[in-house]
Amino acid sequence: MFPVLGILVNNGMVIAIDIAIAVTRIFKTINCTGDSMANKFMSMTNLKFTIHEFIGKQRAQLGVPNDKQTLKSTDMILNAAFEFAKEELHPIFEEMDRHPPQLDKGVVKVHPNVKTIMKILGEDGWIAASFPEKWGGDDMPATLLHALNFIFSAANYSGSIYSNLTTGAARLIFTFGSDQLKDRYLPPMLDGKWQGTMALTEPDAGSSLGDLATMATPLEDGSYLISGEKIFISAGDHDGVDNIVHLMLARMETSPSGVKGISLFVVPKRRYDGKGHLVDNDVVVNQIFHKMGYRGAPITGLTMGEKNNCRGYLVGEANKGLIYMFQMMNGARLDVGASATAIATAAYHSALDYVRARKQGRKISDKQAASPVPIIEHSDVKRMLLFQRAVTEGSLALIMQCGLYDELIHTPSHDQTEDQTKNFKLLLDILIPVAKSFPSEMSILSTSQSLQCFGGYGYCDDFPVEQHFRDTRIHPIHEGTTGIQGMDLLGRKVRMQGGKALALLIKEIEKTIEEANGHSQFQTDAKDLAEAITIVDTTTKLLAKIGVENGEEAYLANASIYLEMFGLFVMGWVWLNQGLTANGRLLEKRPKKADLLFYEGKIKVKEYYFANEFPKILSLSQILTRRLPVTLSMDADHFTN
Amino acid sequence: MFPVLGILVNNGMVIAIDIAIAVTRIFKTINCTGDSMANKFMSMTNLKFTIHEFIGKQRAQLGVPNDKQTLKSTDMILNAAFEFAKEELHPIFEEMDRHPPQLDKGVVKVHPNVKTIMKILGEDGWIAASFPEKWGGDDMPATLLHALNFIFSAANYSGSIYSNLTTGAARLIFTFGSDQLKDRYLPPMLDGKWQGTMALTEPDAGSSLGDLATMATPLEDGSYLISGEKIFISAGDHDGVDNIVHLMLARMETSPSGVKGISLFVVPKRRYDGKGHLVDNDVVVNQIFHKMGYRGAPITGLTMGEKNNCRGYLVGEANKGLIYMFQMMNGARLDVGASATAIATAAYHSALDYVRARKQGRKISDKQAASPVPIIEHSDVKRMLLFQRAVTEGSLALIMQCGLYDELIHTPSHDQTEDQTKNFKLLLDILIPVAKSFPSEMSILSTSQSLQCFGGYGYCDDFPVEQHFRDTRIHPIHEGTTGIQGMDLLGRKVRMQGGKALALLIKEIEKTIEEANGHSQFQTDAKDLAEAITIVDTTTKLLAKIGVENGEEAYLANASIYLEMFGLFVMGWVWLNQGLTANGRLLEKRPKKADLLFYEGKIKVKEYYFANEFPKILSLSQILTRRLPVTLSMDADHFTN
Repeated sequence: MFPVLGILVNNGMVIAIDIAIAVTRIFKTINCTGDSMANKFMSMTNLKFTIHEFIGKQRAQLGVPNDKQTLKSTDMILNAAFEFAKEELHPIFEEMDRHPPQLDKGVVKVHPNVKTIMKILGEDGWIAASFPEKWGGDDMPATLLHALNFIFSAANYSGSIYSNLTTGAARLIFTFGSDQLKDRYLPPMLDGKWQGTMALTEPDAGSSLGDLATMATPLEDGSYLISGEKIFISAGDHDGVDNIVHLMLARMETSPSGVKGISLFVVPKRRYDGKGHLVDNDVVVNQIFHKMGYRGAPITGLTMGEKNNCRGYLVGEANKGLIYMFQMMNGARLDVGASATAIATAAYHSALDYVRARKQGRKISDKQAASPVPIIEHSDVKRMLLFQRAVTEGSLALIMQCGLYDELIHTPSHDQTEDQTKNFKLLLDILIPVAKSFPSEMSILSTSQSLQCFGGYGYCDDFPVEQHFRDTRIHPIHEGTTGIQGMDLLGRKVRMQGGKALALLIKEIEKTIEEANGHSQFQTDAKDLAEAITIVDTTTKLLAKIGVENGEEAYLANASIYLEMFGLFVMGWVWLNQGLTANGRLLEKRPKKADLLFYEGKIKVKEYYFANEFPKILSLSQILTRRLPVTLSMDADHFTN
Repeated sequence: MFPVLGILVNNGMVIAIDIAIAVTRIFKTINCTGDSMANKFMSMTNLKFTIHEFIGKQRAQLGVPNDKQTLKSTDMILNAAFEFAKEELHPIFEEMDRHPPQLDKGVVKVHPNVKTIMKILGEDGWIAASFPEKWGGDDMPATLLHALNFIFSAANYSGSIYSNLTTGAARLIFTFGSDQLKDRYLPPMLDGKWQGTMALTEPDAGSSLGDLATMATPLEDGSYLISGEKIFISAGDHDGVDNIVHLMLARMETSPSGVKGISLFVVPKRRYDGKGHLVDNDVVVNQIFHKMGYRGAPITGLTMGEKNNCRGYLVGEANKGLIYMFQMMNGARLDVGASATAIATAAYHSALDYVRARKQGRKISDKQAASPVPIIEHSDVKRMLLFQRAVTEGSLALIMQCGLYDELIHTPSHDQTEDQTKNFKLLLDILIPVAKSFPSEMSILSTSQSLQCFGGYGYCDDFPVEQHFRDTRIHPIHEGTTGIQGMDLLGRKVRMQGGKALALLIKEIEKTIEEANGHSQFQTDAKDLAEAITIVDTTTKLLAKIGVENGEEAYLANASIYLEMFGLFVMGWVWLNQGLTANGRLLEKRPKKADLLFYEGKIKVKEYYFANEFPKILSLSQILTRRLPVTLSMDADHFTN
């Protein structure tokens, strides 16, 4: 927890800062911008631009500007997080990959530093940061939480998930659990002594949760006897903590079938007996999965109730498990987006380091030069870097945009109407599938381009980038595959309340276009974005027509492609807004050399985005509307050979 | 070699088949189509379609149809190759990855089966197959050679490169070396006893070969003293053979600087002393690279002449090394394209297996069904499969198209004019960068979609697909990066002889369009392809104009994107042609059920390609021409943060 050093007022919330941090960490980071280290994994300059300037400007437009004290306190927290990431997480980034968890006599052994990491993150209040003061937290606002997740994931994604999962599981208990559950489980979880997990997936129920078969049988004492099997449970067991607390979905014999019969339970690895002692709760790790990347985290298979002695404790009401879980889903999906962004960011910075140092070839305009040039001078290398920046900085801005809406929903500003709050909720809802999938899918391409910058070296483990490429490949899979996100966007979000969310989003985009029209150098982009509104709108209506005429399956068949188009569209808005923000800074003050280069660079990436990525919307809209999806008429048997 | 079983007349060439194969191998494969095995890594049906029907139809149009005997003999060779791949290469696909080569006291230890593989491939005549009878070969035609490479790479890419590299190195000696070099080196290399390598890259000269620094000093006996360092040398040393023969680029003190001063040498690991004994030649393995994939092959760093005792033997004339190497480059680049295609093909088949067996979820049109359906029934899964087929089958057809031109260049048909031969050469030249880069780049996306089909399981090493994803990532890097291919296409190939190669290609494409216009169901595609000709033509001219007005750097800045657009364009031609071929088969005979499904499926993939991939040309052409490349005005300093 963070006992008071200073008071941080952020969007109406009061945040207390830990004295301990002041003494043990901020001290060390006072001059640390995160930009000068040799082994750079992120740009603190860019993160602060995104929070203070890109989001800050929008806050000001909404009438809730940050004051100086807030900015200062936020920076202190960011710097402290960065320092922790640099000192504790980043040094074992490769080690955790090369020495993945081992299952040894029923116990999962992880990197020994996991224990230290959980201890520090618990004791210093990071795990509890988003909780109210009563639970040792500070009600930390969403943008800042995403920033912390981003920093930790950029340093070492596998190392970051232990605490992150614990926070998520604790939040489920906090939001829906009884006081008894809270009192029993929250303190050790938030202190980093007990690990939390989300135990959803089963061998025969992955994306299709309605089919899950883990059973919960009520006992007289109010607890439940749990039996079943779970797979792909992240941090499902390990020796870096004293206990594991599974937030587990299961069904009761009396429950309705399908998704409406699923309940949420707390199922600990070790439970309290009547005398206050922890005893084994019959949860057995039956396997750990050997993965291509993300290898520092143990992903486990679990068997519950082999000895008929596994107890679970109902969270909230019966049969509402999936509803509870889905109320947490937005956060989990933003976490995935932020982590994918972070991994791609770290890969970008290692590539940037390399291409500035590596000399090879001559510039096309000076082929006879005696010495080779740093390869960053080659247009094709610059193009690859620009792509990576467009993806990573754009994704980060989008995550923060969602964070802003999240904050406005949960802590409305004083003159915010209820309708406005509902609108922010709709905006967040429609952006979630994009904020989950765009960073996830694009991080594959972005880390791949980082790797390409290294040539043959990128393929070797002397550099971290091959690991980034492997690590990030999980993101389009977990917390709802890209296919699921596409269906969520086109099947649900675009249609909800008669298309109100999309209409609201377009209205926001039109505001940005209007602002851009006031600056001559942004007018072309503004025009492109305005045309894209028409394209997206027309495409959406044409798809609806296809649906009416050919059925729901035809409507949804290319939902993933619609999501791809929609992602490019939203990113156009985000990038134009980022460009305008940077331009505003250039206009309002005479920047120092480094700032000048940063803002000019940011505007150049905006230019790249509109020149090289945004036009893809055109082709995607054609793909969506010109012909009926081929998949409708292609049988499974046509794939015989 | 292949002593006579039957005589195979293929495009004017006579091929002899080994009795030994008949006895030991064909016997086993008589009923093996490659399509029925549980652990399928390729479709023999599709490979035979591509060679016999897609290419066969074109041969017939050129007046050189295959006769029945040729078809039968080709099938025998393909089946024998498949049998070898299945029995020897595929079973150790994973093992070679999990137990990569180790450098132990100066010796690289590889999987013990490498020895067996090289022995069989040598003794049965596969390594020598493309050479004349004098050297134990059969002048095997290019399409068949590519097919063999495809089969072996699909089974186990790492396992396939030992012999492939040996063939390539031997061909350099055969084509440019003295009789003495040939007599000394060819027999043990073609017998699989000695490994061949291509030793080009150096620490400070990767893509920029002009900067290489390995020195060759002439000695009185006509040999050269070699000193220097090489990196990334595939199969640069291992214990599966008795000797290693490096085909190495180096320069002499008297040589001009840059690319014009590079000579080619044979530098063996062990050389003959005056008495016919093999002695150490002072070539030391200084490291092996630890790679993300392609781990079964040792990629080494070499130091030559540490003891001032490393001898090299000049191949051909001095200072012509790069010219010689580049005469082999087309073949090497097609090999990369074929291997990328093969890996993506193997990944596709493992995904196909999985999605047919894995049950989950309900069809959108039948959401209330009691049981889940195989996930191949979901549109989004079908879409992913179609993408994989479009990439892999399209790439294979393109490789074979290049193989056909190669054959027509090297063994002209009897009434072929010299001008026609020159035209085939131009067509091959302009297609090479596409045939190298399209399969390489797209195999990343295709294997990624294969992985996605598995959900979380795809990320785990229980299934081979994560290895395919890792293995194939090398292909956009080696034998000229994608950036280099883009410059080759736009900087050289498109402009050579006043644009003649592009004009010839468009003429070929127009023939296909004309044929397609004769079939009502192909007319839309024909129209799309015709429009794409205009787009590509206009884009090329606009880029030329940009070059004239803004310089060569502006012309080439987005060469990689031009290559991407060009690849989609060429694939449109290839797919329309494949569709027409399949349709022709449906029209000319009453096919059996399995054949019917195959041809219908093929036409569906063509439909998918034109619906979902081909339209991307539109956006790419806009990207290339609407604005000047951002990279021209973005300084390296703008990337500071």
